[in-house]
Amino acid sequence: MDANERDRIMSGCTRFLFGHYPQKPAQALKALAEIADPDQKSDHYGEGEIINGFEREVAELLGKEAAVFMPSGTMCQQIAMHIWTERRGIHRVAFHPTCHLEIGEDQGYQWLHGLRSRLVSKASRLMTLDDLKNVAEPLGALLLELPQRMLGGQLPTWEELTAITGWAREQGIPLHMDGARLWECQPFYGRPYAEIAALFDSVYVSFYKGLGGLAGSILAGPAEMIAQARIWQRRHGGNLIRLYPYVLSARQGLSTRLGRMAAYHQKALEIAAALSALPQIEIVPNPPHTNMMHLYLRGEREHFRDVSLALSEETGIWLAFTPVPTDIPAYQKLEFTVGDATL
Amino acid sequence: MDANERDRIMSGCTRFLFGHYPQKPAQALKALAEIADPDQKSDHYGEGEIINGFEREVAELLGKEAAVFMPSGTMCQQIAMHIWTERRGIHRVAFHPTCHLEIGEDQGYQWLHGLRSRLVSKASRLMTLDDLKNVAEPLGALLLELPQRMLGGQLPTWEELTAITGWAREQGIPLHMDGARLWECQPFYGRPYAEIAALFDSVYVSFYKGLGGLAGSILAGPAEMIAQARIWQRRHGGNLIRLYPYVLSARQGLSTRLGRMAAYHQKALEIAAALSALPQIEIVPNPPHTNMMHLYLRGEREHFRDVSLALSEETGIWLAFTPVPTDIPAYQKLEFTVGDATL
Repeated sequence: MDANERDRIMSGCTRFLFGHYPQKPAQALKALAEIADPDQKSDHYGEGEIINGFEREVAELLGKEAAVFMPSGTMCQQIAMHIWTERRGIHRVAFHPTCHLEIGEDQGYQWLHGLRSRLVSKASRLMTLDDLKNVAEPLGALLLELPQRMLGGQLPTWEELTAITGWAREQGIPLHMDGARLWECQPFYGRPYAEIAALFDSVYVSFYKGLGGLAGSILAGPAEMIAQARIWQRRHGGNLIRLYPYVLSARQGLSTRLGRMAAYHQKALEIAAALSALPQIEIVPNPPHTNMMHLYLRGEREHFRDVSLALSEETGIWLAFTPVPTDIPAYQKLEFTVGDATL
Repeated sequence: MDANERDRIMSGCTRFLFGHYPQKPAQALKALAEIADPDQKSDHYGEGEIINGFEREVAELLGKEAAVFMPSGTMCQQIAMHIWTERRGIHRVAFHPTCHLEIGEDQGYQWLHGLRSRLVSKASRLMTLDDLKNVAEPLGALLLELPQRMLGGQLPTWEELTAITGWAREQGIPLHMDGARLWECQPFYGRPYAEIAALFDSVYVSFYKGLGGLAGSILAGPAEMIAQARIWQRRHGGNLIRLYPYVLSARQGLSTRLGRMAAYHQKALEIAAALSALPQIEIVPNPPHTNMMHLYLRGEREHFRDVSLALSEETGIWLAFTPVPTDIPAYQKLEFTVGDATL
């Protein structure tokens, strides 16, 4: 089954099981042009109301003094780690073994920033306060990912979270949140975003996961830290002459989808409950903490790929997927994310 | 005269003296949506025909094996410098004192890549072969900017250029071209882009100067070097989930404006000839080598700013500018770039 065949079947589908409806560039750009204020001017190398106004809006939502819009989370987080570790004079950052910095950025934090990692906890479970207390080395910064994407979107309880962040504060370790999916956490914690973010010195949020934007991210924190981050953004090549396509789509995602997070979560709970009846499927976490879950499916990878594609063609509902191998050869992993299309 | 007052006067203008017509986001996105093929799919983390097809097109135009599209030239060039110097095992890069890496990127090449610079020549004139021969230290890479933006877009003669690049080749020094305005050079050299680019191991080109795109750049070179550059792009945080707004506008700029470079240059020659009659104006270079020139204006900075703004309001032609101070207090500098609006 080649890529063209998949495309053909996908084009024939009118409904989608996972995430948001896919948009083609022509369609997405037309929609953006329509929501843009006709009189609003472009941003210019990070300046202009179109970008700075949005930065202020997100800073306020997160209860932080300031925020800076960047092209990617990779940029936001390496920069946050650099700034915090430099202040401590300790170039060792602590994070979970499945942290994006460790597995998704070709070790940019090492190559570009001269940082070293201290992996805390196991890849198969969340970090605990005990894990942290057992680290014998001094830490320049601590990064926590809320929710933990590679664990199906698991979240620590509020008590565990505040115990970890409280301990780090006592030790004087700067705290950074990888909030790529922070928006998706609120139904679990049932607290304002600012209250969750207040546990951290800095927060990175993304606009193209649950919020469905084109790309783009924000780093929020103390004003003087964000001013420094802007210098690093320029060094990274992320201070673009125009970022407005991303800013406009981020703002649109925030205004239309932030209010749907509870509905996405509710649907994830329903799906998990229904799938729980099937003995060939393990669900992690069950019940889901956010709008996502990992499904461990008993069977062969090619089988799932082919059957899900055939079903897509037959039903007109796109539910094709290519599962990821797991430690157990008999099981394949599927990341299931609930979005507009799933609803 | 505050920013709002400037905006009000600019909004009243129907013609523009410098560069291309300014576009507001709503207008630019609508135009992009209209040129996008309705069936074309989005790129996905640097993959997909929409981006890879354009990379191949530009690689071919430049006569290089491969190319990679990145958000910014800052990213392209630091990455090229890293790759070339690593091969030589010499972390010293040679470039002009007004090189973008030295003056426009907060020394990212030092902070992110551990490189050191050897500034060659004076800020007030182009680099010569003699300047290079006088460098007593070994060089890991040599960067030449064609044309030299901070010198009003000056270009070395073809003889001088080939003498420099030939010498560097003999020494085994990798050569990189800062071609932010390479497109604008062709009328001067009268040779295909591939013939100019052939003098260099790698070339960076930009799409938002003469070509008038939203943002974005390409690094072109040998296939194995570009494959490495993609790894560094990910480290920099430049491997975005979607880059298509920039790709589409770059392609549009290339197809509509590349053929106008001779006309832009011709108009620059005419403007320089007319201005040459005025004793209060020095033109650098005169005649212009490209579509740009620097004008040194005798008079006070505030005077030029206020008079040009008042003239804009009176005539409905936007020609307001805020000149830059120079070494000579009596003279102010203005960068004059010819684009669609000037024609």
